[in-house]
Amino acid sequence: MFEAAELGHAISKADYKIEVPKLREQLLDAQFELGEKKPFPVVVIISGIDGAGKGETVNTLNFWMDPRNIHAHAMGDPSDEEQERPAMWRFWRKLPPKGAIGFFFGSWYSHPMRQHIEGGKSRDYLDSYLEDFLRFERMLADEGALILKFWLHLSKDALKDRLKDLEGDKATKWRVTKTDWDRYEHHDDLMPVAEHVLRRTSTGHAPWIVVESGDEKYRNLTVAKTILKAIKARLADDAKPTPASVPVVALDQSDDVNLLTALDYTKALSKKDYKNQLEYYQGKLNKLFRSKKFHDRSVVLVFEGNDAAGKGGAIRRVIGAMDSRFYDIHPIAAPSDEEKVQPYLWRFWRHMPGQGKTAIFDRSWYGRVLVERVEGYCAQADWLRAYGEINDFEEEMARHGVIVCKFWLSITADEQLTRFNEREATGYKRFKLTDEDWRNRDKWDEYAHAVCDMVERTSTEIAPWTLVEANSKYYARIKVLKTLCKRLESEL
Amino acid sequence: MFEAAELGHAISKADYKIEVPKLREQLLDAQFELGEKKPFPVVVIISGIDGAGKGETVNTLNFWMDPRNIHAHAMGDPSDEEQERPAMWRFWRKLPPKGAIGFFFGSWYSHPMRQHIEGGKSRDYLDSYLEDFLRFERMLADEGALILKFWLHLSKDALKDRLKDLEGDKATKWRVTKTDWDRYEHHDDLMPVAEHVLRRTSTGHAPWIVVESGDEKYRNLTVAKTILKAIKARLADDAKPTPASVPVVALDQSDDVNLLTALDYTKALSKKDYKNQLEYYQGKLNKLFRSKKFHDRSVVLVFEGNDAAGKGGAIRRVIGAMDSRFYDIHPIAAPSDEEKVQPYLWRFWRHMPGQGKTAIFDRSWYGRVLVERVEGYCAQADWLRAYGEINDFEEEMARHGVIVCKFWLSITADEQLTRFNEREATGYKRFKLTDEDWRNRDKWDEYAHAVCDMVERTSTEIAPWTLVEANSKYYARIKVLKTLCKRLESEL
Repeated sequence: MFEAAELGHAISKADYKIEVPKLREQLLDAQFELGEKKPFPVVVIISGIDGAGKGETVNTLNFWMDPRNIHAHAMGDPSDEEQERPAMWRFWRKLPPKGAIGFFFGSWYSHPMRQHIEGGKSRDYLDSYLEDFLRFERMLADEGALILKFWLHLSKDALKDRLKDLEGDKATKWRVTKTDWDRYEHHDDLMPVAEHVLRRTSTGHAPWIVVESGDEKYRNLTVAKTILKAIKARLADDAKPTPASVPVVALDQSDDVNLLTALDYTKALSKKDYKNQLEYYQGKLNKLFRSKKFHDRSVVLVFEGNDAAGKGGAIRRVIGAMDSRFYDIHPIAAPSDEEKVQPYLWRFWRHMPGQGKTAIFDRSWYGRVLVERVEGYCAQADWLRAYGEINDFEEEMARHGVIVCKFWLSITADEQLTRFNEREATGYKRFKLTDEDWRNRDKWDEYAHAVCDMVERTSTEIAPWTLVEANSKYYARIKVLKTLCKRLESEL
Repeated sequence: MFEAAELGHAISKADYKIEVPKLREQLLDAQFELGEKKPFPVVVIISGIDGAGKGETVNTLNFWMDPRNIHAHAMGDPSDEEQERPAMWRFWRKLPPKGAIGFFFGSWYSHPMRQHIEGGKSRDYLDSYLEDFLRFERMLADEGALILKFWLHLSKDALKDRLKDLEGDKATKWRVTKTDWDRYEHHDDLMPVAEHVLRRTSTGHAPWIVVESGDEKYRNLTVAKTILKAIKARLADDAKPTPASVPVVALDQSDDVNLLTALDYTKALSKKDYKNQLEYYQGKLNKLFRSKKFHDRSVVLVFEGNDAAGKGGAIRRVIGAMDSRFYDIHPIAAPSDEEKVQPYLWRFWRHMPGQGKTAIFDRSWYGRVLVERVEGYCAQADWLRAYGEINDFEEEMARHGVIVCKFWLSITADEQLTRFNEREATGYKRFKLTDEDWRNRDKWDEYAHAVCDMVERTSTEIAPWTLVEANSKYYARIKVLKTLCKRLESEL
């Protein structure tokens, strides 16, 4: 795999002098188009042998291009805010918005590779990460990102030459440390692992590009030209990144029974029972949240449900058992303009709770497979891939120790009508019914269908859905509290 | 000061039961109006005696109100990301946007008060902070925030009773720690300091409100009613928070000499001298940025100047000496919608660099006293107060060890015309001239006037302006590099 990068590629000073001005002109034009014409994010990983000139290459690109929408991320040790959250959080928070270019030194690949080579972790350990990265990059590409992964290569001999050259020059001597010579010694250990990783994770939409890096001029030109070509190709490609529709194979069932119609909506609680149980479960929940075992965990609660199903009331009973300093509620409405220039899940990742904290989502990432699907706000291909992306997202949280609890509050169409009418009668402005509420109601069956698909595809052992019969508000609130208590007990 | 809060205020259970439902109704209505009618941020500090029930009060309010746009912030020890930045950064990042309510436990007052009482710091030390806080709150109020500062009070005896009560109940025993009893012992030390702080920092726009807290029901009702009344009063007040214009007393000078006309625009450099000096100063700058002394410092660079003065080119020469992993360039254009619902300076605070990092602003917070002033984008009162706010902002940075360097790149009107014409001739899209460029040019004198005012009012010893004669690009770039080198040398 690295043979082609050990051929001694080099560019003469004269050629470089001719090539660079032309290339810069083109890079600047491409960058301008990227920002103006149809912005997409450009994610560039700069990886490879330590000492191959990763920093120099990006510095040169910053000088050649317009550096104002280029961001380079060193990604050294995670900060404590980053350590408290799932591993991918620190990359999500640095993702370039549409129109910008993000260079990642030390990308998501660095940690598991180092753990395998230096930390004694198995090949299986490494591979399980690779699988996740493939899915992550697939998602980024589907969201419109252009992804390029560079591996700057030096043979062991070439590395030795380069380190000696650097040491020999007074101006660069400081850059060579003992770590560099240690890594030189381990060159032979790294190469087979690197080859394995590159082979397994080079895809059409996120290819690895190996660049021989012994000659600075060749390296700079090659990386820059590759980026230029990729941006220009994407700019020229007027096709939408995702097809508007793909054939869906769905179960063609012969009766009307589904997860929602099968619920027993007559379940109810008397006011007295409700009061007693509310006190009991809130007390229990309060103790669980105060448990020492919870100090290095966190909780993500998702509340979805029909309009007027009582999400707000259920949330209020849950927080009734909590300390306001340790939770935050995120009502999900239309995305802000900063959210619109990022991949879909970005707006949820940004609210990832730290240790000992709880994030409560009043509506959530499931909007994509509910309202966006039914109302046609996104292409079919986009909501179809969302199931898998959501499962990955929740798995990533679960792996870090985040307890993910999801509630669907379900009421019957009749009960909803009663509540709508009540709301109209009360006249409180804050309960005003919008035309949208009535419109959603007209699509009852389509929403029901979407909910059933959602539960079927995203109720997992690590992040199960709880369907809550919510015609009785009392019953629903207690079921939510009880479920949450059980879940925390089993997790802590 | 605390006498009125030691009278044994209490509410009977019966009265509470009657009052609460009415109050909740009104709170919810006010909150709805706050979000819909004319959103402003509500900043609430919950301070006072430990054990007075700060957490309980906010929990109760969260239950009574719509908790979805209430955010409570514990503000415990700062994270490492927070420690790397000026002290107020952690409060800025938690400020509630317009329409939301933010509760701060442990506000900006906590740290200097504790340092004074427990850390042996002098009264002068404390007072210097108070002065800053007054200015900070003045700024928040001017930006439209409603600010309420509660001090939950308990007399020493009442505190003793409460701690004993809590200890006596199995359900609340865990809440009383040794720290609480230690603080009880120091009650007498705290009170005079608290009185001093409250007296010095209670203002019309950010008043302290002392609430007797021995009786939970009285405390909850009183805090809630006070908040309700304040929000309702502001909602009813249709006057603009700042007057559109205030009389400006300005120097009425009798000649045309000013800071800009006094510059010598014939200063220039030959290409050869430029190349030599560029190499020299970039090498020097590179060494300075790599200095160990820089590891716990950070740099903020501001580039302002006439259109086509060569800001971009100067920035590129500066970063030519830097490692892309340690700087970020922030081009400042129109604010995003998330920025629009925050105080003016929020969008710059969010880019505060961490340790060892540099933030480069291509245009900056000075937009307020330049383009916004000249084009009438903000009220006169707003840009007039901006000078002081900006000085405070930069002082806050300087105090933390951030090196703030500001450049005004100045060209003559003739030179600008030449460059505009050149740009039109090249036809590169990325250099396209907009109508705005020509419009700005028509207001040359007004801009010049604004620049002179700006330099006069914001060029300080801790954050001086450097006026750069930029008719010669070579000369300008070298002057920027040279100035920056000198500044870093003197600071490190």
